[in-house]
Amino acid sequence: MKGRSVTADLSRLSLNTATTKALTLQEAVDAAARAGLGAVGLWRDRVAEAGLERSAQIVRDAGLRVSSLCRGGFLTAADDDGRRAALEDNRAAIVEAATLGTRELVMVVGGLPAASEPEGPAVPDGDRDIVAARQRVADRVGELVPFAAEHGVRLVLEALHPIFAADRAVLSTLEQCLDLAADFPAESVGVVVDTYHVWWDPKLQSQIARAGAEGRLAGYQVCDWILPFASQMLNSRGYMGDGYIDFPTITRWVAETGYDGDVEVEIFNQSIWDQPGDEIVSTIAERYTRLVQPYL
Amino acid sequence: MKGRSVTADLSRLSLNTATTKALTLQEAVDAAARAGLGAVGLWRDRVAEAGLERSAQIVRDAGLRVSSLCRGGFLTAADDDGRRAALEDNRAAIVEAATLGTRELVMVVGGLPAASEPEGPAVPDGDRDIVAARQRVADRVGELVPFAAEHGVRLVLEALHPIFAADRAVLSTLEQCLDLAADFPAESVGVVVDTYHVWWDPKLQSQIARAGAEGRLAGYQVCDWILPFASQMLNSRGYMGDGYIDFPTITRWVAETGYDGDVEVEIFNQSIWDQPGDEIVSTIAERYTRLVQPYL
Repeated sequence: MKGRSVTADLSRLSLNTATTKALTLQEAVDAAARAGLGAVGLWRDRVAEAGLERSAQIVRDAGLRVSSLCRGGFLTAADDDGRRAALEDNRAAIVEAATLGTRELVMVVGGLPAASEPEGPAVPDGDRDIVAARQRVADRVGELVPFAAEHGVRLVLEALHPIFAADRAVLSTLEQCLDLAADFPAESVGVVVDTYHVWWDPKLQSQIARAGAEGRLAGYQVCDWILPFASQMLNSRGYMGDGYIDFPTITRWVAETGYDGDVEVEIFNQSIWDQPGDEIVSTIAERYTRLVQPYL
Repeated sequence: MKGRSVTADLSRLSLNTATTKALTLQEAVDAAARAGLGAVGLWRDRVAEAGLERSAQIVRDAGLRVSSLCRGGFLTAADDDGRRAALEDNRAAIVEAATLGTRELVMVVGGLPAASEPEGPAVPDGDRDIVAARQRVADRVGELVPFAAEHGVRLVLEALHPIFAADRAVLSTLEQCLDLAADFPAESVGVVVDTYHVWWDPKLQSQIARAGAEGRLAGYQVCDWILPFASQMLNSRGYMGDGYIDFPTITRWVAETGYDGDVEVEIFNQSIWDQPGDEIVSTIAERYTRLVQPYL
């Protein structure tokens, strides 16, 4: 995939802090700013380490946008305590997103209750009911929408690759996310397209177009599907161009909706995490300039 | 998952030879017959080892049915030689299925051309076009249909889990398989439901019902989704009940279509392959009797 050669314009490129896992929030923001990126996507763990107000200040001082906060969700608990704890944690995440100046709170909705620990025991009776787990997600999103709306924050549903359906997200396709979102205002419930999770979907083009038409396309995240798989499945992701995803085509589908937001690079990969921060940022900038930017 | 307790009736249970990888066709057939199973699902490698006519004789002598032949497919080659070779190999598989006395030839359609070797190099320009690869599958299925019809064999499209979209099958959902099949007679192009590959699908119930209504439900294969993943992703499958799949629910959905065919157990798992054949068969018989048969 050679891609077109164009003048680099990194104003819509966003560094998700998960891509530079070894860096503090300050270090990640500095690396993004040095390279000329326009935004950062923040994970709550890095924000908690630096402090909420301080994190907001760090990003403002660097003149960057916060493209999204990752992540709320994990709404599938079957018991009352689990439900209460999840709602409380998501309200905190909504407040954090508003304080950081981003509208978009990415939601990883959670898997089958007993599967949250892959190393855990076999799931007990009843917990294999994925249909019921999905309904709990819909119910709890409904409980969170008014609070999110008050704070000007949008719950951004993320379809995770079906390989994570058991332990991380019972939302597996963009169509499924949009069907769930349809019961709520577009300002309060959106969707994000993460190429790693949805590249294989035969309905991807039509559902990206639908997300745009419904005003729910809240984010575009890029990273590649690589083989062979890493021993830690969650971390088996690569730089754009290192795997099997057709970035020009999917980026065109996103651009055709009129999407004018940031493009976040979120990569889970130990060998990338082991690289120096500036090297990681320069690599994603080069790949973005070649495989994504020309098609936006 | 306790399941209901009923009298074991293994007449619709089929042992797929991939589940007993260490056994010859004769040994697998003997183990299935000893345990009282009604059928076997055969892989072409075991048939080739025993010889085609001899394999048919072995199954007949044991009084078993052949529920399906695995597998045809791998139709995504982008070059003429690859196309010709694939059509030739699939015509041979169609003849083998007819000779073995089964109507159902399971088709694993193939992945992105350059991804067939997971350990191979990064894919070259162009080969990331999954939309074009799917079209080649549809075109080549169309080329094979007349030959299959002449031999009374049905091309059974198998949706593989999206984790295999790059290297094994660009058909990832039952809906996608049925959309492709719609251009052809139901007697010539069907679909198989393999729980391992489709359990996560939010549209599974509706598409199983559709497959039944369209007369295309050609097979039902069961094995479980287990965590953590095996180092060899293809072999990360388990006995029914050892993982996260809701067999009673999915089996009810299949039964509601009026499906009266065999239930094949096809499990890829090194630790199971290392067990004695009779132990494997008795385990799948026990799991089937508890988790599948009561809901058929």
